[in-house]
Amino acid sequence: MNKILLINGPNLNLLGQREPEKYGSSSLSDVEAAVRSIVNEHGGQLVTFQSNHEGEIVEVIQNAKKQGVEAVIINPGAFTHTSVAIRDAFLAVQLPFVEVHISNIFKREEFRHHSYLSDIAIGCIIGLGVQGYELAVLYLLNTK
Amino acid sequence: MNKILLINGPNLNLLGQREPEKYGSSSLSDVEAAVRSIVNEHGGQLVTFQSNHEGEIVEVIQNAKKQGVEAVIINPGAFTHTSVAIRDAFLAVQLPFVEVHISNIFKREEFRHHSYLSDIAIGCIIGLGVQGYELAVLYLLNTK
Amino acid sequence: MNKILLINGPNLNLLGQREPEKYGSSSLSDVEAAVRSIVNEHGGQLVTFQSNHEGEIVEVIQNAKKQGVEAVIINPGAFTHTSVAIRDAFLAVQLPFVEVHISNIFKREEFRHHSYLSDIAIGCIIGLGVQGYELAVLYLLNTK
Amino acid sequence: MNKILLINGPNLNLLGQREPEKYGSSSLSDVEAAVRSIVNEHGGQLVTFQSNHEGEIVEVIQNAKKQGVEAVIINPGAFTHTSVAIRDAFLAVQLPFVEVHISNIFKREEFRHHSYLSDIAIGCIIGLGVQGYELAVLYLLNTK
Amino acid sequence: MNKILLINGPNLNLLGQREPEKYGSSSLSDVEAAVRSIVNEHGGQLVTFQSNHEGEIVEVIQNAKKQGVEAVIINPGAFTHTSVAIRDAFLAVQLPFVEVHISNIFKREEFRHHSYLSDIAIGCIIGLGVQGYELAVLYLLNTK
Amino acid sequence: MNKILLINGPNLNLLGQREPEKYGSSSLSDVEAAVRSIVNEHGGQLVTFQSNHEGEIVEVIQNAKKQGVEAVIINPGAFTHTSVAIRDAFLAVQLPFVEVHISNIFKREEFRHHSYLSDIAIGCIIGLGVQGYELAVLYLLNTK
Amino acid sequence: MNKILLINGPNLNLLGQREPEKYGSSSLSDVEAAVRSIVNEHGGQLVTFQSNHEGEIVEVIQNAKKQGVEAVIINPGAFTHTSVAIRDAFLAVQLPFVEVHISNIFKREEFRHHSYLSDIAIGCIIGLGVQGYELAVLYLLNTK
Amino acid sequence: MNKILLINGPNLNLLGQREPEKYGSSSLSDVEAAVRSIVNEHGGQLVTFQSNHEGEIVEVIQNAKKQGVEAVIINPGAFTHTSVAIRDAFLAVQLPFVEVHISNIFKREEFRHHSYLSDIAIGCIIGLGVQGYELAVLYLLNTK
Amino acid sequence: MNKILLINGPNLNLLGQREPEKYGSSSLSDVEAAVRSIVNEHGGQLVTFQSNHEGEIVEVIQNAKKQGVEAVIINPGAFTHTSVAIRDAFLAVQLPFVEVHISNIFKREEFRHHSYLSDIAIGCIIGLGVQGYELAVLYLLNTK
Amino acid sequence: MNKILLINGPNLNLLGQREPEKYGSSSLSDVEAAVRSIVNEHGGQLVTFQSNHEGEIVEVIQNAKKQGVEAVIINPGAFTHTSVAIRDAFLAVQLPFVEVHISNIFKREEFRHHSYLSDIAIGCIIGLGVQGYELAVLYLLNTK
Amino acid sequence: MNKILLINGPNLNLLGQREPEKYGSSSLSDVEAAVRSIVNEHGGQLVTFQSNHEGEIVEVIQNAKKQGVEAVIINPGAFTHTSVAIRDAFLAVQLPFVEVHISNIFKREEFRHHSYLSDIAIGCIIGLGVQGYELAVLYLLNTK
Amino acid sequence: MNKILLINGPNLNLLGQREPEKYGSSSLSDVEAAVRSIVNEHGGQLVTFQSNHEGEIVEVIQNAKKQGVEAVIINPGAFTHTSVAIRDAFLAVQLPFVEVHISNIFKREEFRHHSYLSDIAIGCIIGLGVQGYELAVLYLLNTK
Repeated sequence: MNKILLINGPNLNLLGQREPEKYGSSSLSDVEAAVRSIVNEHGGQLVTFQSNHEGEIVEVIQNAKKQGVEAVIINPGAFTHTSVAIRDAFLAVQLPFVEVHISNIFKREEFRHHSYLSDIAIGCIIGLGVQGYELAVLYLLNTK
Repeated sequence: MNKILLINGPNLNLLGQREPEKYGSSSLSDVEAAVRSIVNEHGGQLVTFQSNHEGEIVEVIQNAKKQGVEAVIINPGAFTHTSVAIRDAFLAVQLPFVEVHISNIFKREEFRHHSYLSDIAIGCIIGLGVQGYELAVLYLLNTK
Repeated sequence: MNKILLINGPNLNLLGQREPEKYGSSSLSDVEAAVRSIVNEHGGQLVTFQSNHEGEIVEVIQNAKKQGVEAVIINPGAFTHTSVAIRDAFLAVQLPFVEVHISNIFKREEFRHHSYLSDIAIGCIIGLGVQGYELAVLYLLNTK
Repeated sequence: MNKILLINGPNLNLLGQREPEKYGSSSLSDVEAAVRSIVNEHGGQLVTFQSNHEGEIVEVIQNAKKQGVEAVIINPGAFTHTSVAIRDAFLAVQLPFVEVHISNIFKREEFRHHSYLSDIAIGCIIGLGVQGYELAVLYLLNTK
Repeated sequence: MNKILLINGPNLNLLGQREPEKYGSSSLSDVEAAVRSIVNEHGGQLVTFQSNHEGEIVEVIQNAKKQGVEAVIINPGAFTHTSVAIRDAFLAVQLPFVEVHISNIFKREEFRHHSYLSDIAIGCIIGLGVQGYELAVLYLLNTK
Repeated sequence: MNKILLINGPNLNLLGQREPEKYGSSSLSDVEAAVRSIVNEHGGQLVTFQSNHEGEIVEVIQNAKKQGVEAVIINPGAFTHTSVAIRDAFLAVQLPFVEVHISNIFKREEFRHHSYLSDIAIGCIIGLGVQGYELAVLYLLNTK
Repeated sequence: MNKILLINGPNLNLLGQREPEKYGSSSLSDVEAAVRSIVNEHGGQLVTFQSNHEGEIVEVIQNAKKQGVEAVIINPGAFTHTSVAIRDAFLAVQLPFVEVHISNIFKREEFRHHSYLSDIAIGCIIGLGVQGYELAVLYLLNTK
Repeated sequence: MNKILLINGPNLNLLGQREPEKYGSSSLSDVEAAVRSIVNEHGGQLVTFQSNHEGEIVEVIQNAKKQGVEAVIINPGAFTHTSVAIRDAFLAVQLPFVEVHISNIFKREEFRHHSYLSDIAIGCIIGLGVQGYELAVLYLLNTK
Repeated sequence: MNKILLINGPNLNLLGQREPEKYGSSSLSDVEAAVRSIVNEHGGQLVTFQSNHEGEIVEVIQNAKKQGVEAVIINPGAFTHTSVAIRDAFLAVQLPFVEVHISNIFKREEFRHHSYLSDIAIGCIIGLGVQGYELAVLYLLNTK
Repeated sequence: MNKILLINGPNLNLLGQREPEKYGSSSLSDVEAAVRSIVNEHGGQLVTFQSNHEGEIVEVIQNAKKQGVEAVIINPGAFTHTSVAIRDAFLAVQLPFVEVHISNIFKREEFRHHSYLSDIAIGCIIGLGVQGYELAVLYLLNTK
Repeated sequence: MNKILLINGPNLNLLGQREPEKYGSSSLSDVEAAVRSIVNEHGGQLVTFQSNHEGEIVEVIQNAKKQGVEAVIINPGAFTHTSVAIRDAFLAVQLPFVEVHISNIFKREEFRHHSYLSDIAIGCIIGLGVQGYELAVLYLLNTK
Repeated sequence: MNKILLINGPNLNLLGQREPEKYGSSSLSDVEAAVRSIVNEHGGQLVTFQSNHEGEIVEVIQNAKKQGVEAVIINPGAFTHTSVAIRDAFLAVQLPFVEVHISNIFKREEFRHHSYLSDIAIGCIIGLGVQGYELAVLYLLNTK
């Protein structure tokens, strides 16, 4: 895995400012930097993207393959529970991805227990804070 | 409450043209003007915003606090029933808001009976036509 | 609208004493007085009624029309969720009414999310405290 | 069957005035008179009762047996769908009864399709207008 | 109503032999004779039909109108709960009909509580034994 | 606990006459006397109340606190499954109570398995016959 | 596709007479003729069949393959929602088929929204009136 | 058990031709012959019947008793999941029967997991191929 | 119908590249060209639009009427199952439309079986591949 | 009742250490001693058993009868909601039992509201703390 | 099939003592002996095992394959409805098995209608008493 | 975190032998060794435990705290979906834990989508193969 794409969905641009008891105090760029440094250590490349617009995330996934991305880490935020379009983008490009949630969605509202992505993901890391991103990237780097 | 943000969701730009028996004949700018005049009378300021794009509404809410907005009135339109991202934006910025629906959603399709916002709103005004916006703003202005 | 009837359902006689964090500290007669003064200012007349007995509320609604009542404001309290008889009384007399809830019923138990009245009401004001009654009466007075 | 009790539930006192397209134009006393004349022709006695109060209907059923009532015809109105207490009164006194509905409840709201009484009634007559009462009494008079 | 059609569905040919505690001891021809004599007394005509085949019942309904039938009494037996085709035949010919059940279907299995016909019938007579047919015909003869 | 209120809901006035295989043969006054003698032995006072009217039970609960009642034992009968108003009365006065059912409601109809009171009660005693009242009072007397 | 079988289910023999606002005014033989002329133009052959009997439709499907039929167009009418036997006949003979509905079943009763055939059909044409048959046959003729 | 009736429902006439991986390659007459030879060995008599018409199966069951049949083996095919009429025929004649399914219905579509017959059958043999018929007949022959 | 608008929703820009076994190998512009040539032959005009952004589709529908569009063909892709906003746009402009799905959504995940558009569409063409667009346009051109 | 068996299910060995706000501070042996002393006062004998293993509880129930146990008190802990095997053991030995829960299970997670034992128990004592055991044994000792 | 393993789940050790009207009067060892004699006649070997402990059954299945067992007959008793662990053991060892129930589980409580094993079994024999075991073994011995 | 307990539930002793396409080819002791070496590198201690018995896992959790365990990693296997007792053990000892699943449970049977542990876990790692254990331990070692 030389090139990994990290996608963060809506409201994750507020990381560090928003409900810190649930999401921690690191900003999104802190988190991206930490993940990038792990990827770089392994000689790989990390592309990062955040958007509050479903359509933009769909298009970033559509374009990922032709830009040489080999795997995706995505925290779809609220779109986890509402976006079939993102699911379809992954089905279309057939890129392997890991789904990450910072907070433990099973401790929260019932509607957060269902994800439109989990069953087509490689797997999920849920509730382990921003460390979840780092573990996901370690997984991808260790997998052939 | 010196600065209030009024958000209207998808298709509310058609107010006055669209299904007038359900939504009345005032245009959105008529309605915004009427609400603004009430706010101004109380010495406050009204910011208005309409969008058909979920992501734009998310971002307006994200930015509201840093721009001094103290409370929000939102008619989320169709996003009432489908948007977790708008819910999450409100959870993130922790701004108080009143949810308004022009038509009585309980007279309509089953799926319109559920709102992703009501349980985190201060409260709701439903079915009282465009007067609902004015009542909401009166409520906010009267609430210390 | 010259004559408006304000009905409060079970346990609303305890207003001001009961769970003040949910229902505020004004007593029911304070609230009725405040609403009456608004109605009187507009040259109208307010009739008030509270009961813990479903049958009595049914009968007050049945008799309202012949007593010249033109519109009703009702906070049905617990009967919101259990009374088909009150619904049928409104269907029988065909008087327009606004449904008011002091607390935000969507923040509370699941069974409080359903109302036997909402779909036949003009509309609802929910969660705006005792101000909800005043807003409802303003709505009725402003509506030709 | 010498003595038959005819019970009408909430809002049936408005018969003839209320939604005539659903309930017809005869008043309740017209209907009671028509049923009484059939019972009298057969040498029996009809007791009639209407109430908008669940508790009163419960008590009329409790007292029926000791007053020599042999069978009951009941149109429970709205209590059909909400009253376990009336069901329990029938279970307690073990008087046979026929359930009558003037309008066809299966053409109406979903919640009107369930009755707390039907499964412990002898049977039901539904949607045949006020004639339903007369047919019910004919049934009881013809049944040994 | 000069010409009435009485339809009995599957297994009602066994009337009198089958589960007599539920269905009584009169045979189907006894029942048909009793109903016919009531119709004849009123100067009308009764056509009777029984079938265990859904398709035959569909066709009898289709042909009824052109044969001068003005109303139908149907005990659809098991087809009550399973036949959309019979529903569609009634919708197609637009003949008024009364649905009759000999036993009280609400005392029986859950799946017998739903009928594909009730909401398009004039009404239903349920659980009053074979008298139900006679009451239904009385209703039709008394109605205009 | 010096003063305890014992409330019995609808149809419990028939205790001893009604379905003795389910409810036993003691009358309600026998039961009340037995409970009172236990309370008196402990130097306390028992107030008893039975009603078939939801509204009356609501009001007895509302008034209990100001009359010095410290705890309630309630067998809500049929209102267990249908009364939000009684629930709200308990929420309003915040008096601790034990819910008692003479018969085992879990052996009975599905709709009897849900109680609107259990989750706000201290606890429940179910199916232990009229002894349940005595055990409930023992519990309250032993609880400081 | 040289030989195509067109099957119409129950009540479609009434086409043109039945609910014309839903089903149009062409008779079934008009429709069959129109479809046949399209098939013939393409040098193919159309076999038509209508029945109100589920068993007959099952058998026509069973026999179709050995008679050289290469594809089927079926409007199963009411059997859409109730017939597993027709589904099984298609599973057994493995003939490709298109499901056609004249009216838009999604505008109608809830139970019409489920089809026992759709998931094993090639596809469906719904709500486009009797033109749906012609479009289905065009599809089959254009395929391979 | 001297006389046993073996009924096969819709599409089982195709046995051996239809989906052989699910239903095996023996034809229905092979299977009937194998079962008959077991019955004959035990000195009994086997009557066989297959139909794609629900009504015919209903009538064969109705007539079985008077023809001396003592027990039935039925593979209701698709009617398992849709026919209340066949259930009612068994309830009417009160003949003991064993329900057989060649394929394992629990491996298949959700709607095949429910049978309208199982709870009134002696029992079921499911998924053991055409041997299921032989085991069922052995059971009946061994049962006094 | 002189001017027809063809809308394709999210991920349909990948047509021909994405899951070709489900969606075929023609690109979106191939498909649009084929549809356009049919429209042109009939002397009409085709406007085409594809977007991965719900808000853009909402706005194209809002603007269609004032641009003289008389009917719409829409393949809403993933938005079929999640977008109330697109439904509301159609309700607002009251333009007739046909819903097209290339793949058979009834063969796919459960959540794809529900559409927020079908019940307000003229009708649907499902599972007939990219031919579905051509059939839809033929339908519109043939409909006066 | 001379010999009573007291069974405590999984995690109840931690009584007094575990969540004391829910379960109190007495240890299991304290509780058993208190119950035993009541039984002994009445001249009876108490056998106690605790296990975290479903199979062991099943076997203790199986063996109870042959060891002269006349009634059982069981707090099945977590097995309340998951063990059909314990239910079956009670059904097999037909020993009367009272079900006790220390905490009020109706205040807790939804899945704790269902018990596999309640409907075959004599009755239940729920939420009255460790006193519940003592009340249960008093009940059994007072019952013939 | 030379070596067959027969597993009986919880409470089946009570066979012959427990609810004989449901389970018959043979003891488990009688039943095992009868099955063994059939297996031996065919030159095979039967291993038998009964346990009230889910974990032990899991382990017997895990070990079966390495001990040369070729097929399993299992009556999982109560574990049928609650044990995913036994399902997983079968999935892990991939041994073919037949599921047997002595009583007809479809005549019993709703929760007994679902099995965690049926869909991965070869098939099931249900309700044919202890003969079910013999039929299952005949099936296995006859299956190559 | 000096002392970590790693628990594996039923059938995980077969790791490496069982469904290798789902669970990989490492044996459980390989996996435990790999995890231990990571813990040791960080100067911590790993205790490992596997059991097919729910009760044993309950007891290991109960004892963990007093043995100085500071955090737990658990793959509950099948008990994920069925064990309230393990949930209660965690609630009782209040030890933080991470839930690990080797395979992606969201790709599998519906009943595997619900866990009785997730909402009380710190978080979950799902579908990342046996690497999931290593990532979980990294998480725990990096936390505080």
